[in-house]
Amino acid sequence: MPAADLKKHVCDANLATVRFGLVLSTFGNASGIDREAGRIAIKPSGVPYDRMTPDDMVSVRLDGAILDNHYRPSSDLDTHLVLYRAFDGIGGVVHTHSTFATIFAQAMIPIPCFGTTQADYFRGTIPVTRHLTEDEIADSYVASTGQVIVDAFEDRDPLEIPAALVAGHGPFVWGRTPNEAVQNAQILEECARMAWHAMQLRPDLEELPSALRDRHFLRKHGRNATYGQGETA
Amino acid sequence: MPAADLKKHVCDANLATVRFGLVLSTFGNASGIDREAGRIAIKPSGVPYDRMTPDDMVSVRLDGAILDNHYRPSSDLDTHLVLYRAFDGIGGVVHTHSTFATIFAQAMIPIPCFGTTQADYFRGTIPVTRHLTEDEIADSYVASTGQVIVDAFEDRDPLEIPAALVAGHGPFVWGRTPNEAVQNAQILEECARMAWHAMQLRPDLEELPSALRDRHFLRKHGRNATYGQGETA
Amino acid sequence: MPAADLKKHVCDANLATVRFGLVLSTFGNASGIDREAGRIAIKPSGVPYDRMTPDDMVSVRLDGAILDNHYRPSSDLDTHLVLYRAFDGIGGVVHTHSTFATIFAQAMIPIPCFGTTQADYFRGTIPVTRHLTEDEIADSYVASTGQVIVDAFEDRDPLEIPAALVAGHGPFVWGRTPNEAVQNAQILEECARMAWHAMQLRPDLEELPSALRDRHFLRKHGRNATYGQGETA
Amino acid sequence: MPAADLKKHVCDANLATVRFGLVLSTFGNASGIDREAGRIAIKPSGVPYDRMTPDDMVSVRLDGAILDNHYRPSSDLDTHLVLYRAFDGIGGVVHTHSTFATIFAQAMIPIPCFGTTQADYFRGTIPVTRHLTEDEIADSYVASTGQVIVDAFEDRDPLEIPAALVAGHGPFVWGRTPNEAVQNAQILEECARMAWHAMQLRPDLEELPSALRDRHFLRKHGRNATYGQGETA
Repeated sequence: MPAADLKKHVCDANLATVRFGLVLSTFGNASGIDREAGRIAIKPSGVPYDRMTPDDMVSVRLDGAILDNHYRPSSDLDTHLVLYRAFDGIGGVVHTHSTFATIFAQAMIPIPCFGTTQADYFRGTIPVTRHLTEDEIADSYVASTGQVIVDAFEDRDPLEIPAALVAGHGPFVWGRTPNEAVQNAQILEECARMAWHAMQLRPDLEELPSALRDRHFLRKHGRNATYGQGETA
Repeated sequence: MPAADLKKHVCDANLATVRFGLVLSTFGNASGIDREAGRIAIKPSGVPYDRMTPDDMVSVRLDGAILDNHYRPSSDLDTHLVLYRAFDGIGGVVHTHSTFATIFAQAMIPIPCFGTTQADYFRGTIPVTRHLTEDEIADSYVASTGQVIVDAFEDRDPLEIPAALVAGHGPFVWGRTPNEAVQNAQILEECARMAWHAMQLRPDLEELPSALRDRHFLRKHGRNATYGQGETA
Repeated sequence: MPAADLKKHVCDANLATVRFGLVLSTFGNASGIDREAGRIAIKPSGVPYDRMTPDDMVSVRLDGAILDNHYRPSSDLDTHLVLYRAFDGIGGVVHTHSTFATIFAQAMIPIPCFGTTQADYFRGTIPVTRHLTEDEIADSYVASTGQVIVDAFEDRDPLEIPAALVAGHGPFVWGRTPNEAVQNAQILEECARMAWHAMQLRPDLEELPSALRDRHFLRKHGRNATYGQGETA
Repeated sequence: MPAADLKKHVCDANLATVRFGLVLSTFGNASGIDREAGRIAIKPSGVPYDRMTPDDMVSVRLDGAILDNHYRPSSDLDTHLVLYRAFDGIGGVVHTHSTFATIFAQAMIPIPCFGTTQADYFRGTIPVTRHLTEDEIADSYVASTGQVIVDAFEDRDPLEIPAALVAGHGPFVWGRTPNEAVQNAQILEECARMAWHAMQLRPDLEELPSALRDRHFLRKHGRNATYGQGETA
């Protein structure tokens, strides 16, 4: 993929986080990777969304070397890099402080899978990371943020649960493309909003039966997916 | 009614679910039936709302046979068909994942009729279905979703309570026309939002006295309705 | 005031209820009175807001006689008439089903005066009416709705507390003009939203000290008001 | 700075409070100071936002003497003056009744620092003032409102915690410029919204570890800030 196309996809994903109401001010960042070319494009740090263009995206390598642009990359770059190195099926990463996902991250409570809305996109509970140690905060804060996410996925498939909540911070969400990552971030926020309210309404509420959860997840994902227009549309 | 008119009404109802804030992404679907012609029009599966036109609607028969269009119909088609076959007074069906109605569906708590806002459109509590069995999920998931709704109406009139919450999933709403169904879905969401908050404010709150409930419902429905401009406007 | 001017003010107030997010669908109604001319203008029943013009407003007398227009007046007309007859200082009445004010009405809990936002417009708690009896509902539902509001003001000044919550129904709000009534309805909704949340945060919260409450109310109302540009602007 | 430039910045900050959804009606006010010229510009009292221009801003001296304009200054002027005199590093002050910050002010509960969203802008808990005495309310209400804020900062740095909640009233927020003050007001509201919901989800929730809090605050503030494009962009 030409570098300009990747930057276009990544810029679109960043602007979509604003359009979907997932970010305030200059919070949040989205990136994408072209694995064949070994090139990542990511939002620049602190540039206002209302004048952001594809050209402003910063190109970096998977080892963090900056390839082009006079802007500094997002201050969360190292978290994105750790995720791209650990989860080789993902093609886009989005970080937001979206309201309800962040509330669960602050409370350090995983988001239970109470409904088919969540099951359509996430095959189960959204995990929360542990808090970073003081040493990790002092020495390698941003990369360690990525590492605690990876640790939370030891026994999970990151493409089946494409999101994690960083304790005290907020959600990181991913997908096969930058566009899919931002869509997952939008659904995650709505699922978090509904889960918060469902827990107030019925504190002892249990998660969806796994048969129903999988029926929905597998309707939209995997070899036997039947949703949408498939190849024939 | 010409097939194109039905498709126009159904497309309008689908777009209204977005305009009323009842659906995210490509969630949700609306359909309508022309009972004389034996023809149903329904939203295609997974087509983005922002480029949806009446021509995209899929025509099917009441037995599910596809009459025209190269698009696949909504993956929830079989639920709509079961409702049209069981409730012969209805002319439109809308399914959404609207936030507060879905929260009650996830918590499996019926929406009590606490106020005249609800009583103007629903003559009482909005029921919740039972969960589907594993066999139903495996063998006939979408049609069974319709059947558990029908089961919940054994002792209710579907035109007096034009909505049900599918456990763990979300609301299905209907009406005499696709337009009335989407309006009922909008009111349902607002009633669910108010009921949720009223229950937090006063956990022991009782439903509206039936005399007041019926005064409102019958003001807008049935032979003696006095609301609006009637035949004279 | 020419009849057309009153209709213009009343139409503007009706449209403002939509712009301020206080009404859904065709819910809600606003009216105004020209006491010198003995003429009231009120929203017609069930006419969509998006094609409402001043000419659509219906003129009636204080005894309910219709003066002009081929439209039926709002089905809540008799409530407005009772309020105009009982509260002779008011010039406009607005009825909405705005979300949080309606939640308090459904729960039959008065809205406490917790903050200066409320004190700037309402000198204390917003009262809730009693429920109507079955006879009142059967014989004179709409007028009785006005009467229970008037009853709730036996020991209150309706211009100091320009709103009441009708049990199980929603708010009626008034002011010296239709425009002031709709502004009071907007502030009431925001105060109800804040009171609901403050009560969840601190269930034993007490109302504002009366000295602080009156300092704010009297800053904007009465002979010694200092807010705004007064006569000199 | 020319007087017209200061008025432009202050008018922009006032209009941003509306754009960010922080004020209703004519509530709220923003001001800015040019310390070299000894000149403050502040919003006029009760002028509608939709026809406000820079020329409408009122110029006053730090002792309250009005320098120009035929409009009265905001009725909260004396609070702003007390803050400018006490906190010499600040250049802009914003007062709103934004929903969730006001809810905490009404409940008289400080806003805990639960997440990095807050830590990016506020180095800790947002304090609440004591209630004013009846004498203070009667004799010097507006100036005393400023004084109780200053009292709450005896052991805090107002540039590290650029906001306070006035008991029963609402937030006052500041910054090095009017624009920074309004941005802080926007972040404060979002932090209050998230804190309210996090406290419902987990009533025993503790504040963010101070190492993580300071890592975020110092990333955006002070000599070693690394966020944004710095001088090189």
